[in-house]
Amino acid sequence: MNQTLAASLLDRIGRAFRDVTQTARSWRGAPYREDLPEQDAERLSEQIDLCLEGKGGEVSVRARAAALGKAYLDLNEEGRKRFLTVLAERYGLDREKLADRVEAWRRAEDVEAEAKAVARLRDALDPPAIRLLAQFTGLPQGVKFLVDLRADLIRWTKDEPRFTRLSEELRRVLAGWFDVGFLNLERITWSSPAMLLEKLVEYEAVHEIRSWKDLKNRLDSDRRCFAFFHPRMPEEPLIFVEVALVGGMAGSVQVLLDESRRAEDPHEADTAIFYSISNCQAGLAGVSFGNFLIKRVADELARELPNLKHFATLSPIPGFRPWFDRLVASDPPDFFASGEREALASLIEGEVTPQAFAQALTRKDWMQVPALRDGLQAVLSRLCARYLTREKDRGRALDPVARFHLANGARVERINPLGDTSRKGMKQAFGMMVNYRYKLEEVEANHEAYSEGRVIASPAVAKLARA
Amino acid sequence: MNQTLAASLLDRIGRAFRDVTQTARSWRGAPYREDLPEQDAERLSEQIDLCLEGKGGEVSVRARAAALGKAYLDLNEEGRKRFLTVLAERYGLDREKLADRVEAWRRAEDVEAEAKAVARLRDALDPPAIRLLAQFTGLPQGVKFLVDLRADLIRWTKDEPRFTRLSEELRRVLAGWFDVGFLNLERITWSSPAMLLEKLVEYEAVHEIRSWKDLKNRLDSDRRCFAFFHPRMPEEPLIFVEVALVGGMAGSVQVLLDESRRAEDPHEADTAIFYSISNCQAGLAGVSFGNFLIKRVADELARELPNLKHFATLSPIPGFRPWFDRLVASDPPDFFASGEREALASLIEGEVTPQAFAQALTRKDWMQVPALRDGLQAVLSRLCARYLTREKDRGRALDPVARFHLANGARVERINPLGDTSRKGMKQAFGMMVNYRYKLEEVEANHEAYSEGRVIASPAVAKLARA
Amino acid sequence: MNQTLAASLLDRIGRAFRDVTQTARSWRGAPYREDLPEQDAERLSEQIDLCLEGKGGEVSVRARAAALGKAYLDLNEEGRKRFLTVLAERYGLDREKLADRVEAWRRAEDVEAEAKAVARLRDALDPPAIRLLAQFTGLPQGVKFLVDLRADLIRWTKDEPRFTRLSEELRRVLAGWFDVGFLNLERITWSSPAMLLEKLVEYEAVHEIRSWKDLKNRLDSDRRCFAFFHPRMPEEPLIFVEVALVGGMAGSVQVLLDESRRAEDPHEADTAIFYSISNCQAGLAGVSFGNFLIKRVADELARELPNLKHFATLSPIPGFRPWFDRLVASDPPDFFASGEREALASLIEGEVTPQAFAQALTRKDWMQVPALRDGLQAVLSRLCARYLTREKDRGRALDPVARFHLANGARVERINPLGDTSRKGMKQAFGMMVNYRYKLEEVEANHEAYSEGRVIASPAVAKLARA
Amino acid sequence: MNQTLAASLLDRIGRAFRDVTQTARSWRGAPYREDLPEQDAERLSEQIDLCLEGKGGEVSVRARAAALGKAYLDLNEEGRKRFLTVLAERYGLDREKLADRVEAWRRAEDVEAEAKAVARLRDALDPPAIRLLAQFTGLPQGVKFLVDLRADLIRWTKDEPRFTRLSEELRRVLAGWFDVGFLNLERITWSSPAMLLEKLVEYEAVHEIRSWKDLKNRLDSDRRCFAFFHPRMPEEPLIFVEVALVGGMAGSVQVLLDESRRAEDPHEADTAIFYSISNCQAGLAGVSFGNFLIKRVADELARELPNLKHFATLSPIPGFRPWFDRLVASDPPDFFASGEREALASLIEGEVTPQAFAQALTRKDWMQVPALRDGLQAVLSRLCARYLTREKDRGRALDPVARFHLANGARVERINPLGDTSRKGMKQAFGMMVNYRYKLEEVEANHEAYSEGRVIASPAVAKLARA
Repeated sequence: MNQTLAASLLDRIGRAFRDVTQTARSWRGAPYREDLPEQDAERLSEQIDLCLEGKGGEVSVRARAAALGKAYLDLNEEGRKRFLTVLAERYGLDREKLADRVEAWRRAEDVEAEAKAVARLRDALDPPAIRLLAQFTGLPQGVKFLVDLRADLIRWTKDEPRFTRLSEELRRVLAGWFDVGFLNLERITWSSPAMLLEKLVEYEAVHEIRSWKDLKNRLDSDRRCFAFFHPRMPEEPLIFVEVALVGGMAGSVQVLLDESRRAEDPHEADTAIFYSISNCQAGLAGVSFGNFLIKRVADELARELPNLKHFATLSPIPGFRPWFDRLVASDPPDFFASGEREALASLIEGEVTPQAFAQALTRKDWMQVPALRDGLQAVLSRLCARYLTREKDRGRALDPVARFHLANGARVERINPLGDTSRKGMKQAFGMMVNYRYKLEEVEANHEAYSEGRVIASPAVAKLARA
Repeated sequence: MNQTLAASLLDRIGRAFRDVTQTARSWRGAPYREDLPEQDAERLSEQIDLCLEGKGGEVSVRARAAALGKAYLDLNEEGRKRFLTVLAERYGLDREKLADRVEAWRRAEDVEAEAKAVARLRDALDPPAIRLLAQFTGLPQGVKFLVDLRADLIRWTKDEPRFTRLSEELRRVLAGWFDVGFLNLERITWSSPAMLLEKLVEYEAVHEIRSWKDLKNRLDSDRRCFAFFHPRMPEEPLIFVEVALVGGMAGSVQVLLDESRRAEDPHEADTAIFYSISNCQAGLAGVSFGNFLIKRVADELARELPNLKHFATLSPIPGFRPWFDRLVASDPPDFFASGEREALASLIEGEVTPQAFAQALTRKDWMQVPALRDGLQAVLSRLCARYLTREKDRGRALDPVARFHLANGARVERINPLGDTSRKGMKQAFGMMVNYRYKLEEVEANHEAYSEGRVIASPAVAKLARA
Repeated sequence: MNQTLAASLLDRIGRAFRDVTQTARSWRGAPYREDLPEQDAERLSEQIDLCLEGKGGEVSVRARAAALGKAYLDLNEEGRKRFLTVLAERYGLDREKLADRVEAWRRAEDVEAEAKAVARLRDALDPPAIRLLAQFTGLPQGVKFLVDLRADLIRWTKDEPRFTRLSEELRRVLAGWFDVGFLNLERITWSSPAMLLEKLVEYEAVHEIRSWKDLKNRLDSDRRCFAFFHPRMPEEPLIFVEVALVGGMAGSVQVLLDESRRAEDPHEADTAIFYSISNCQAGLAGVSFGNFLIKRVADELARELPNLKHFATLSPIPGFRPWFDRLVASDPPDFFASGEREALASLIEGEVTPQAFAQALTRKDWMQVPALRDGLQAVLSRLCARYLTREKDRGRALDPVARFHLANGARVERINPLGDTSRKGMKQAFGMMVNYRYKLEEVEANHEAYSEGRVIASPAVAKLARA
Repeated sequence: MNQTLAASLLDRIGRAFRDVTQTARSWRGAPYREDLPEQDAERLSEQIDLCLEGKGGEVSVRARAAALGKAYLDLNEEGRKRFLTVLAERYGLDREKLADRVEAWRRAEDVEAEAKAVARLRDALDPPAIRLLAQFTGLPQGVKFLVDLRADLIRWTKDEPRFTRLSEELRRVLAGWFDVGFLNLERITWSSPAMLLEKLVEYEAVHEIRSWKDLKNRLDSDRRCFAFFHPRMPEEPLIFVEVALVGGMAGSVQVLLDESRRAEDPHEADTAIFYSISNCQAGLAGVSFGNFLIKRVADELARELPNLKHFATLSPIPGFRPWFDRLVASDPPDFFASGEREALASLIEGEVTPQAFAQALTRKDWMQVPALRDGLQAVLSRLCARYLTREKDRGRALDPVARFHLANGARVERINPLGDTSRKGMKQAFGMMVNYRYKLEEVEANHEAYSEGRVIASPAVAKLARA
């Protein structure tokens, strides 16, 4: 959990929290030391036990749970790791209890007894740690607290594999709370609070927002930005998408983000290009809402602007380069399609091999020399079409972004050689980007096809991939 | 589910729903007949199966589930019962699957395998009916839909005991969604929407609201009204409490509700009297938030008006009359305390027996004759103190209202002979009401005492009960 | 100013006002006695003088003016009359000063000097009373205060003719503040604050709202209600209009207000019937916004419901009965049109004279006897058409409601014999009502015609009037 | 009027305006050419005449006025100047009419006739141009339109002196609309819309906001920002003030604006420092609200933070340098106080004369050399105290910022030698700033003293000035 949040939590909880901690302080004695040494960890454990026993009524129990939450925020990184270790090790699933309740279920003799046995069995599957954490909703910003606590768990899991299970249990609880049916879709504009816009800048994961001017440009009258929010975290976007309203399928992100362009009339656009989707909450990893976001936003846009006919993305291809490097290294006989070697002969020094091809791409000026650029891009585009549509791992597309959109029912529409000429774009995929297209009437069929292992692509891309 | 809601749902879902049903209609064929005859029930079952299989991706599945929800609303009572019967009978717990997964859990050999096995075991405990219903959150007003569907289940359970289990499973899901940490506490005033105030009139369960004038009086400047709301049901109060800000402990509800009284200055009141708490959603029976409501409201009031020193209820005693009747019928030797027989001798005709005492209370004018009234009330008050503090059933107070407040940590403060002289009040407890008092610093101890079977009362009431 | 407002003002002004009056109290000494006897009136006058001199800077002056406003509210009716008398008599136009400034203007020698002279001349035209009152905007609810103060002036003008001029000066100031360009048009629904809806009940001037149920019916899904609000009086409607969305031209207000009717689908209505327009603020008499209201509402409706083709009123004819009575009394030869006498001969006892005709209308059952009813209504309708379209006073229609709609550019569309069968409707116009129709493309021409003395009517009504 | 506003106006007026212009287009024929050549100016004049005649009813007239407003926005700078010239020259005050009405007033024989004559006299004082412009409130953003139109008038007045009078007349109308009683005071925070915050950056006139980070720092938890808004221009601040909550009187603006500082707890501050007040609307020049702003904000702060004891500014001294230069040039015998020459002798080369002193201040490093700095500042501070408290022009302080605060009742509290070491600060007043202090209980007396020509200062400053 970052310091800003901790400060903000401490700042705003106000009287409510002061009361809570007053109640709780008398009960829990001295505050814990920052790094939660052994002795304090023991004391913590005793207090968790009291909390789980439920003494003093439900309201008091919540107050105590809140005090534990507050205690967590006051710890340093070392102390937090120890806190979570206590939770993970001592308050995990009670196997014995579970076994007993399984047994009781087996022995249940009538419907009523079985119903009770099932309920008790279910309870036994909730580890006490989770029962404790679920009480933290009573905290001001309690939901955000738990989301960030899970972010801590995820971040430290590498060093502390025992956090994995607690993290997964917490994910399950959060997935219930963050069910898409409970979320609000809201449009974000230049009239939104600066505090919120600042978060977009921070969270944008695809094409970095360089300045407030860049941001304002992305919120211009021919742009749209939507985010999902949870009612208990009204100031925290969960995921947001940036859309450009344009004429025709957009092929270059630099053109879209050009700050000097003039806004077009959105009522004359025929295409909505989803050019960036960013998750905002590390603690919600594994809770998915991206697919709903795209479709809800497409719905909203179709309603507002009946002139829109096409919905597509302009997406990066983050897995292309690693795959390409592996392919080059394996030096396969089918690296080049027929005619390509010949076309490249005059452009590349020495023999035309995969290695030589890869070598040519390391030249700083390859994009500046028209003939060279065209020659290399022809091969790259074909390989990319192949990569996106034919290369798979256990039936799923290799590329992570492709996996997301294909599972959502999109199809591979077009490969754009000069899509992203930024350093990042050149590094990921030699500047290539791809459009995934959402055709409302084909989404279900595409999804089904993909779930059976087939990737649907436009005729042009399919032909290219076969070449 | 009542007709108004159905109409309102149909009215407001707007385009969103039309889309959903369009998608869904093509898929589900003709609409069901209103009473869902056998053949249609079969078709329904097929469609539920498709829905549970998850074909077409998560977004499509939600749309289909929504179509099923819509179908439910279009059925008549007979049809709805059949719909619920299909759910309850065919989509309940799959015992075989559960047994298999228990077995798999037993055989899990390492931590990772166990974690998976536990997750699968947990899934098997969720009956398919519940998995289906949980998808309905995607419906506009989907949460209200499920709350009302549970109200249907409860209402019909008497005739259809097989609904009991489904109702209980749904309660569990709703209890998770309606966790008090997710609710908003809001003040209701005469400036609140008429549509909302109308619901108070409808839902008030303790002292009927007779007119808008009566209602306005209850929202005057020396009155307060608070309710809990769920973010997904912003127009539907879940529970509300009415409070009077007065000087001293209020003893008569007629005085509180007198429409001709003048509002007092709330900054001069020293006592907040909670005189009515009403649950609004039949479908949330068994999901409790009353205890939190009282304490959150007391907090709010203490913050707004630091002059408030005492927090208490003015409550009905709904179980007194039945207990009194049983007591009279059993004719116990300790019915009267010492001296009471003598005091009553001149007031009652014939011998002073419990029956004669009960007989005297049937006289229409007993409250109008001062001597008679005082004589009878002396005995009634003592019996009432005994009833509230000493009579128990399995360690819990006999009176349902007493049970609620005592479990919350209140104490029995004062018995008010002329507390409620309405017909209902006379019938329930011969006009008596009781104050339960919440002293912040004693609430935990009182709760603990009560959980061990002891009822805490003020010295005066305790003495009366012992007489 | 009514007591409720005074109380509410005193209630809500809160700290702001306490500060103001504290500042001011030290300055003004003891409070005035309730009836402002001579001595206190003198003291008041001194304080007004200080206020007008502007000592202590603009902020202090406003605080003092506010204190005077507060003092006014604390007076009883007698005291207020005296307060206003002081204002009207001592702080009216200063003729001498005006004459001087006229002279100075005459002598101004260059453009700059003239500009200054004009400004000073203009100042001299503002009586000091008005300069003082205009400072009251600084009061919480100061604008409402002035509106109500003018209502006081109007109410007492009959007894105190000297208030006329002050009232008119104040009207002029208010007309500037309440310029229609500064007003907000807002829709009122069943979700509006009860406090606001209560005011509709109070202010409805055309067809009394009998109960909250009646009100709810008027806010149903096929009804609309809009009001103008001023930003400084956000809780006080200025004028509101009630609209029914129906198929065809509505002819009966009882049908429109029937609480047992079922709401129609507003998307299928072709006609918007404006059946009630009520001014809410007595103190804004002479400040007109009704014409803007109708047109802005028609705009809003046309935007929301493109299916609406016709916009018309269903209006009372309040001047018909007095005119009819005068007509009967004058016994003119052209009272009956050709054939009418004969038609009535069998229906009326004795000779068919205007008096006998009027006599027949006093029979309680005339509407129950079909032949009689038809006979009488035929004559009444024709007379009404004549009354509305041909009878004038100095070029303007006789009927006050007709004057309003005709000046707005509406035309007389249809006379409805059974339009309003309430007591009030029978008394005003023997149950007749009239539709005024607003055809967007004819409004300007109709207005011009009317301003030249011609009333535009539908062919049917015009023909009837000529009969 | 700037292009952004024009664009925004055109963008948002939506259907309303399209209707208006449709109505109006048919009526006004072809659009005007951008530079409004003679011929078009004639046509414009005809249309203004029609508008002023009031044909077609009030609603139509407003629509036509709106069309004229739209026409203005479509002109280029040349065209707009011609448009305004038409207004100023042809629609100014009608002297003949005014003379007639003066005459009619003289001849009025009774009270009623006089009242009418006065009303007609008043009308004659409103030039037709103003009557026309006042109709523009009907435009969406019409009030902003007029404010910006006045900004145009002011900007062009230098070249077109004939605009002076129209500008002044418009100022008068705007002053009525922007009466402080109609304005809303709103707090601005980092949660305010980015669109609004962007305007602060644009309008800040005292200490330039260099970046969004600088802005965020100025909105931190120990800072406050408030602005006045008009209900018809909700997105346009009129004036805003920036306040720092600190311990003790702040003396350096660089310290206040340091982005690396940590926020203090505002509940521990004892002083509110108003360090920047900026007017935002050029078109409202001459309409004052700064004095109300300071006092309302001081009120708000005192309410929120009872710990605040002192309210003061940290203000620039923009007139010091010009005065100082004039003083040096006049070489007065009393330039130095006793002992100053001697003290400076060792610091300045050559003879210690005013010129030599001024020369020393041109050294780039004078602030870096402690002895020199102290020596120079001692003289500067004294001169500054003299400048602020004793130098006057027609009874008013010479310094424009001093004039504002002294007239508001503040006193000169402290001179801060190192107050603003930015280039601008050094240039204006050799880095000096001054605190004006507002003591609530002295404000009225100070105002009165100043209005009689006396400047109130703290004892320390007064002593310094006398030295």
